[in-house]
Amino acid sequence: MISGVISRIARAGYKDWGRCDMTYVELDEGTTVAGVTTRNVCSSPEVDLCRENLKGGRARALVVNAGNSNAFTGQRGRDAVDAITAKVAGHLGCATGEVFVSSTGVIGIALPIDKAEAGLHAVFSAKPCSWEQACETIGTTDTFAKGVTASANVGGTKVHLAGIIKGSGMIAPDMATMLGYIFTDAAVDAAFLQELLTASNDQTFSCITVDSDTSTSDTVLAFATGKAGNAPLTSFDEAGADAFASALHDVCRQLAHLVVRDGEGAQKFIEITVSGAVSNDSARRVGLAVANSPLVKTAIAGEDANWGRVVMAVGKAGEPADRDRLSISFGATQVARHGVAVEGYDETPVGAHLKGREIEIGIDLGLGEGRATVWTCDLTHGYISINADYRS
Amino acid sequence: MISGVISRIARAGYKDWGRCDMTYVELDEGTTVAGVTTRNVCSSPEVDLCRENLKGGRARALVVNAGNSNAFTGQRGRDAVDAITAKVAGHLGCATGEVFVSSTGVIGIALPIDKAEAGLHAVFSAKPCSWEQACETIGTTDTFAKGVTASANVGGTKVHLAGIIKGSGMIAPDMATMLGYIFTDAAVDAAFLQELLTASNDQTFSCITVDSDTSTSDTVLAFATGKAGNAPLTSFDEAGADAFASALHDVCRQLAHLVVRDGEGAQKFIEITVSGAVSNDSARRVGLAVANSPLVKTAIAGEDANWGRVVMAVGKAGEPADRDRLSISFGATQVARHGVAVEGYDETPVGAHLKGREIEIGIDLGLGEGRATVWTCDLTHGYISINADYRS
Repeated sequence: MISGVISRIARAGYKDWGRCDMTYVELDEGTTVAGVTTRNVCSSPEVDLCRENLKGGRARALVVNAGNSNAFTGQRGRDAVDAITAKVAGHLGCATGEVFVSSTGVIGIALPIDKAEAGLHAVFSAKPCSWEQACETIGTTDTFAKGVTASANVGGTKVHLAGIIKGSGMIAPDMATMLGYIFTDAAVDAAFLQELLTASNDQTFSCITVDSDTSTSDTVLAFATGKAGNAPLTSFDEAGADAFASALHDVCRQLAHLVVRDGEGAQKFIEITVSGAVSNDSARRVGLAVANSPLVKTAIAGEDANWGRVVMAVGKAGEPADRDRLSISFGATQVARHGVAVEGYDETPVGAHLKGREIEIGIDLGLGEGRATVWTCDLTHGYISINADYRS
Repeated sequence: MISGVISRIARAGYKDWGRCDMTYVELDEGTTVAGVTTRNVCSSPEVDLCRENLKGGRARALVVNAGNSNAFTGQRGRDAVDAITAKVAGHLGCATGEVFVSSTGVIGIALPIDKAEAGLHAVFSAKPCSWEQACETIGTTDTFAKGVTASANVGGTKVHLAGIIKGSGMIAPDMATMLGYIFTDAAVDAAFLQELLTASNDQTFSCITVDSDTSTSDTVLAFATGKAGNAPLTSFDEAGADAFASALHDVCRQLAHLVVRDGEGAQKFIEITVSGAVSNDSARRVGLAVANSPLVKTAIAGEDANWGRVVMAVGKAGEPADRDRLSISFGATQVARHGVAVEGYDETPVGAHLKGREIEIGIDLGLGEGRATVWTCDLTHGYISINADYRS
């Protein structure tokens, strides 16, 4: 569907799953790449590899292993990643620096090199697969396949984007976490692609949270094959750069929302908009403090308009806030204004809003022009069941 | 039990509770006071009052209202606090700056002045009560009364300490949160008492967490009546200062532990010791990141030795850490050393340890001499039930 991109899947057998667990994406020569990775300092060797290879800005292949994150495995884990990049580079006749690898699943067990090599042997000769098959294969505890497409007009040329993502929370059992890949046939300079992805990431993937836990493996990569034939985009001065940036942003936002919608135990999708902050960054930090508050998330699960818990979470964020200027709304109804409850506000629409599956919380700090929107899900018995009621 | 301290309780009727909800503690002339309060910027007017009155270092009375936190109530809330301090000051013939007030319970509803005044009227003439009665009266969702006593030899004089605390989490439903009061008959200069309390707080109340949410009302106050007759303590140079500091620290630590043991839904008490950090502060921040991680807390609830989640939480703390120097133990058994799993470690003692009610997690960062211990509880279905399965 994206010219210059061919996906294949195979079974390496990392776990006793009756399904494929290795995804291999071949990218035509000339493909540029950009990426963002976890800030967790205990990052996996795959994340280290991606960071290193991103410096070159060129990609020919992506390998995603599901069922084993290979994190916290020392030299043996690093050796496994090196074996994969060497084998793929040999197969394609490219540099190892053009091969990107991700792994997701249990931690502490080095990715078995023999299984990885057997998987690669099988996947090289597998038939091309659909996006949906690739999407299912990179997943672990995900309850549905997550993919998004978009297009844009770049200087008269129609370019296409497709994104796939896995993750059911910022972190899922055994550190199987968010991995996202975006492919486009647009021609985009690697540095400009990185600029666009970083900017979109700040407002999308970095604005979602399920449980405040950040993974050792989180990675989002964007690949541009250039097969659409547009004049390569190198800055916002060029025709179509805005359109492409907007399409990329849409893909990132939609992928990020899909992760929250599949959050562990999630029954409600919560959008929190913070305005009136001293800066956009401050607004985002306030929003994430609210989104990460177990007491706010359980209140929403209980369909309870407990705005006191929102006040508490705003206050603990460590950001500039003035109790007596703070206003809070649920849906379209303001329930607190300038530090006190709105006398006799209509509880009917608030109650109806909270019974829905899409919850909006508005927070106005009344201090400045900074604003941000973040997304999370409610905290339910389902989350406890998924994460406590089993042994690894 | 503490000379110079008399407690009384009465029913102001803030809620439809069939029990007393106002605690009044009278302190003899000459009582010094120290305190620490929440860092939540949306603090209640009671917290603001305590902060202001602590500057004077003198106390004659403490009033604690249960059932209404009076937080986020604007000028009406401030008026209620002023009415209480004025009435108590008039009754005792002291300055309003010597009257301390705390309130805990539902937020957003101003404390009704008529009920507060009627409660004070009743409490002034009530019979002195026991510590246990005072303790029960300051509680809200607490499942047991929490009190601690200690004594110390100060320059040949035996001094006594008694502490009471309420809270079943850093925060409980409707922001009814941690309030702690420590009384001693020792003579201690207010500035030195503050120095001791601040130091102990850093290693006790500031090292516990139930759900990462910090309240708008958290307050810990220490009152010293001087009735024991020791030469007033003003610095560590004096005989008995170390003994008193140690006794105060014990009281703080035991009170803090009681809060965690009564954490909402808690089934296990978890002690997390971090060593090898670049500083003690860094060690505490790493410990709290682990203690606040929903995935670590649910793993312990599930009696699962999932050390990968501990690695993840260490990595997200934002503190210096090196994946390849990190070691982790459960109980007495090291399960990961220098960034990799310990080959063939004995799972039997680990499994037995996790089945117990007292869990120890050891984390060695391998970087420096910094260390800290923090305490939390597991995250269970009980927490969700308490916080989601009801409407406020």
